[in-house]
Amino acid sequence: MKNPITEKDKWFFEESVPYDVSGTKIGIKIKKKLYSGKSSFQKIELYDTYAYGRILVLDGIVQTSEKDEFIYHEMLCQTPMFLHENPRRVLIIGGGDGGALEEVLKHKIEKVWVAEIDAKVIEVSRKYLPSISKRAFKNKKSEITIGDGKEYINKYKDFFDVIILDLSDPGGPAKDLMSLDFYKKTKRALRKNGIISIQSGSFTCQPGLVSTIFSRIRKVFPYTEIRRAVVPCYQAGEYSFTIGSTADLEKITLKDIKKKYKKLKLDLKYYSPDIHFASKVLPKYLKEMIEK
Amino acid sequence: MKNPITEKDKWFFEESVPYDVSGTKIGIKIKKKLYSGKSSFQKIELYDTYAYGRILVLDGIVQTSEKDEFIYHEMLCQTPMFLHENPRRVLIIGGGDGGALEEVLKHKIEKVWVAEIDAKVIEVSRKYLPSISKRAFKNKKSEITIGDGKEYINKYKDFFDVIILDLSDPGGPAKDLMSLDFYKKTKRALRKNGIISIQSGSFTCQPGLVSTIFSRIRKVFPYTEIRRAVVPCYQAGEYSFTIGSTADLEKITLKDIKKKYKKLKLDLKYYSPDIHFASKVLPKYLKEMIEK
Repeated sequence: MKNPITEKDKWFFEESVPYDVSGTKIGIKIKKKLYSGKSSFQKIELYDTYAYGRILVLDGIVQTSEKDEFIYHEMLCQTPMFLHENPRRVLIIGGGDGGALEEVLKHKIEKVWVAEIDAKVIEVSRKYLPSISKRAFKNKKSEITIGDGKEYINKYKDFFDVIILDLSDPGGPAKDLMSLDFYKKTKRALRKNGIISIQSGSFTCQPGLVSTIFSRIRKVFPYTEIRRAVVPCYQAGEYSFTIGSTADLEKITLKDIKKKYKKLKLDLKYYSPDIHFASKVLPKYLKEMIEK
Repeated sequence: MKNPITEKDKWFFEESVPYDVSGTKIGIKIKKKLYSGKSSFQKIELYDTYAYGRILVLDGIVQTSEKDEFIYHEMLCQTPMFLHENPRRVLIIGGGDGGALEEVLKHKIEKVWVAEIDAKVIEVSRKYLPSISKRAFKNKKSEITIGDGKEYINKYKDFFDVIILDLSDPGGPAKDLMSLDFYKKTKRALRKNGIISIQSGSFTCQPGLVSTIFSRIRKVFPYTEIRRAVVPCYQAGEYSFTIGSTADLEKITLKDIKKKYKKLKLDLKYYSPDIHFASKVLPKYLKEMIEK
């Protein structure tokens, strides 16, 4: 039982995650602390690490890393963008690191709106994580609003094709953005055949969170799907990505997705037409977990 | 950067894994240390933990846990047992905890041989982890030999239908069991249409190990497949399971696997006919990793 404090190296140890089945901890060895500050909403830290490159940490919890952000952002964004027949207007709530924005801009959209509550997250991400957002914040199709997603959504009715919830864990400023009421408002803000995509927590350490979000989405949207993927810089195990839709998702075939993927000439690192379908096959123990 | 040593709780921190891309660490909170000892081959520890129930630790590295052993053992054993047309004689090299043995005995086999180098691992597992092996060691179809797999395999030619390598990381006694020469010997020990199944390391923290094992199996066996699954009690990320076969695996369809699964009346928690196929779909970044 070697203890890290006796080593010369510096380690970042993650805080407990809300809804967590406690009793595990991840440590990430640090090259350098790049930034540490407090916004009106949360504690923001940036580290350069050996395993994951630069990481963004909010209230002690890893949000994204240079090395594996593509897994998270492609699963969260490409899935609804491919499920929707013709996504023109997209809303991202949260997503201050710009990674979701960059994924959405790979499609032939009209415009993408970002509603992020914490301007400091955008500022720090643009400065320290330019490889994640690339030039997405400067794109003329991007419109950034600093504000509470809960209030923001009230202004829209029958407007967006795709809404992406790229939120932190529900302990911080995102805590009201998983309520039944909020999901109903997102549905109202969607046009016909609209789709919502949500990062819905860890199957492994937050089973209660996953099943809560999934069951609420199922109450609000007639068609729901749940996918899984591993983002190594996050706490142990598999993460869930939930989709809610007003259009019948069952009709979409592998052939449809392949055709669209080819037409857009995308070259992604994680999401592919085959992954689109494989990632929604759940083992029995996870199926039972979300049905609870 | 809260440090665990300042807490009242006791934590187990895993040692570095061989072939590791260093810079991450997992900690597991401990209820109680149940056993600690040294065999002729390795340090053996057993802990009762909050997150994973009891865990077996060899040379500082987590080998299995009560809570998620089924993921590892079903992926390692059910896959080759379903890929083989009629597995009658099965050899497990390693597997001292009995979890692989228990999976194999769910099939209509003639006999299963276990060659484990360390008698102490079997003794301690039978005492502290009875839920993993259940009654498998006592089954009349089981034959247990204490000995080196490298020597053991020399005695057999054209004999087994399935060989399962349930080994620890290649730092300890298992270090010679990933050589090209050893894989050639396992092939010689297999009957016609024989299959080998291997735990081949973490895609995330041991990419060099995964690609080394995969490329060696591909040199020796005409048909190879690689699958992925997450075993939460292991280091971050996705683990690989490699299959080598002398029979054409491409011919096996979902319908074939479903039929066999139904006939055996199995009720597994992870492996299923759908998982059989979904788990071999790799994202592009992992495909590129193993092709290196």
